[in-house]
Amino acid sequence: MGLLSLLLFLGTLAVSPNGSQEVEVLHQIHPLRPQSGSAGTPVRGLSCLSWRFGVETHNIIDWKTVPQSCENYIGHYMLGDQYREDSKAVVDQALSYAQSLKLAGDGKDVWVFDIDETTLSNLPYYAHHGFGVEPYNATIYNKWVNEGEAPALPESLRLYKKLLSLKFKVVFLTGRPESQRNATANNLKKVGYHTLEKLLLRGSADIGTTAVTYKSNQRENLEKEGYRVLGNMGDQWSDILGTHIGNRTFKLPDPMYYIS
Amino acid sequence: MGLLSLLLFLGTLAVSPNGSQEVEVLHQIHPLRPQSGSAGTPVRGLSCLSWRFGVETHNIIDWKTVPQSCENYIGHYMLGDQYREDSKAVVDQALSYAQSLKLAGDGKDVWVFDIDETTLSNLPYYAHHGFGVEPYNATIYNKWVNEGEAPALPESLRLYKKLLSLKFKVVFLTGRPESQRNATANNLKKVGYHTLEKLLLRGSADIGTTAVTYKSNQRENLEKEGYRVLGNMGDQWSDILGTHIGNRTFKLPDPMYYIS
Repeated sequence: MGLLSLLLFLGTLAVSPNGSQEVEVLHQIHPLRPQSGSAGTPVRGLSCLSWRFGVETHNIIDWKTVPQSCENYIGHYMLGDQYREDSKAVVDQALSYAQSLKLAGDGKDVWVFDIDETTLSNLPYYAHHGFGVEPYNATIYNKWVNEGEAPALPESLRLYKKLLSLKFKVVFLTGRPESQRNATANNLKKVGYHTLEKLLLRGSADIGTTAVTYKSNQRENLEKEGYRVLGNMGDQWSDILGTHIGNRTFKLPDPMYYIS
Repeated sequence: MGLLSLLLFLGTLAVSPNGSQEVEVLHQIHPLRPQSGSAGTPVRGLSCLSWRFGVETHNIIDWKTVPQSCENYIGHYMLGDQYREDSKAVVDQALSYAQSLKLAGDGKDVWVFDIDETTLSNLPYYAHHGFGVEPYNATIYNKWVNEGEAPALPESLRLYKKLLSLKFKVVFLTGRPESQRNATANNLKKVGYHTLEKLLLRGSADIGTTAVTYKSNQRENLEKEGYRVLGNMGDQWSDILGTHIGNRTFKLPDPMYYIS
């Protein structure tokens, strides 16, 4: 992807933490092309649009990397308008749902957010690593996470602020390990997530469990502590499947990686 | 939508019941335009692509009709290549899953199919009724169903044939009422679904229950009879949510209507 695209994307992100609803949509130099590889040419034998449909609807599961032939398609999608638009469509539903609820007012009404590709965006990282085409590399990925420089997803930050004003308690539930607590907490605060009830990371006892099991256990613990999980939002199906999933779940787009 | 589009679509379908895998993809006179209304112009305040993302991922629920401004977008999608391609992406996953299983060989390994927009296509009907923009009209819709002229969804028919050759028993589980049993059975047979273990329709006791509850109950009954639901495929989330959902579920595309 061109550096200019990335700068435009980051430029758009940078406008958001100040809370303005009037984020200007920048001119797209790479409009999304459906079903296309580089330069809009069709990909033989594989529709990247269909691949994305299959992934987002949880028909295609347990995949390791984005198909090589879809790197440009996914890159255009992630850096262009459409990813932001799709996120907005989800957040609009979440907000309308949240506003329809009457909270008990006892401080136990909770909204659970995942972190990566839900509240924080690792797009600056993935833009340099093939948008999911390159196999996961823990060393260089963790280096990026520990820098604590991930921007907020603008739409999720908008939802977060509205939830706070509606008196929800916000819990961040992530597959990141405890060793990344400080980097994560600082990163969240820096980009605008300043008030949180809990930040739940994987402890040593959770190593080796799937995300579905780990996150189900954590939500069960929340309920045992008297919390009511009214909303639950993530980019992975493993954030919203399993048990104790909450009264309603929301799936943000993420065609770059799969966590089971 | 132009009559020519519809004829081309039906022409494509007509090739399929003879079992040929070499269905020729006809030239598309209306290539899919992302995020567009009539003539590819952007829809103000609403991305139809994002609306479809929200619907297919079950973020947007309990909706009554397709947004008026998305009629042309959804029409292009349904009549163009992309709907067929998306269906193929799902069926390819289902087939790969089915082939990975070792069946017990006792005749109790079952694949459950929904009917409308899963095994039979009502696109000839919806093409004349705004692709979901018009409110549901039971009288004219039931007239269409009773004619028994719905074509097969080509990709689902392909899966069905493979499942039979793998020795699966196939169960059709539909929200259609018992009064439409004969029309439904004849329609299924006519387009190529000739062998079925059961055809389950809504009886008088099931009237007034949601599709999720009705279908969960029916699948529970199947299990009580000793069947193992190894696969479960539908176009609605209500086909694959609830209880006794089966070992693995598959969600086909359907941006035209929502059944809870």
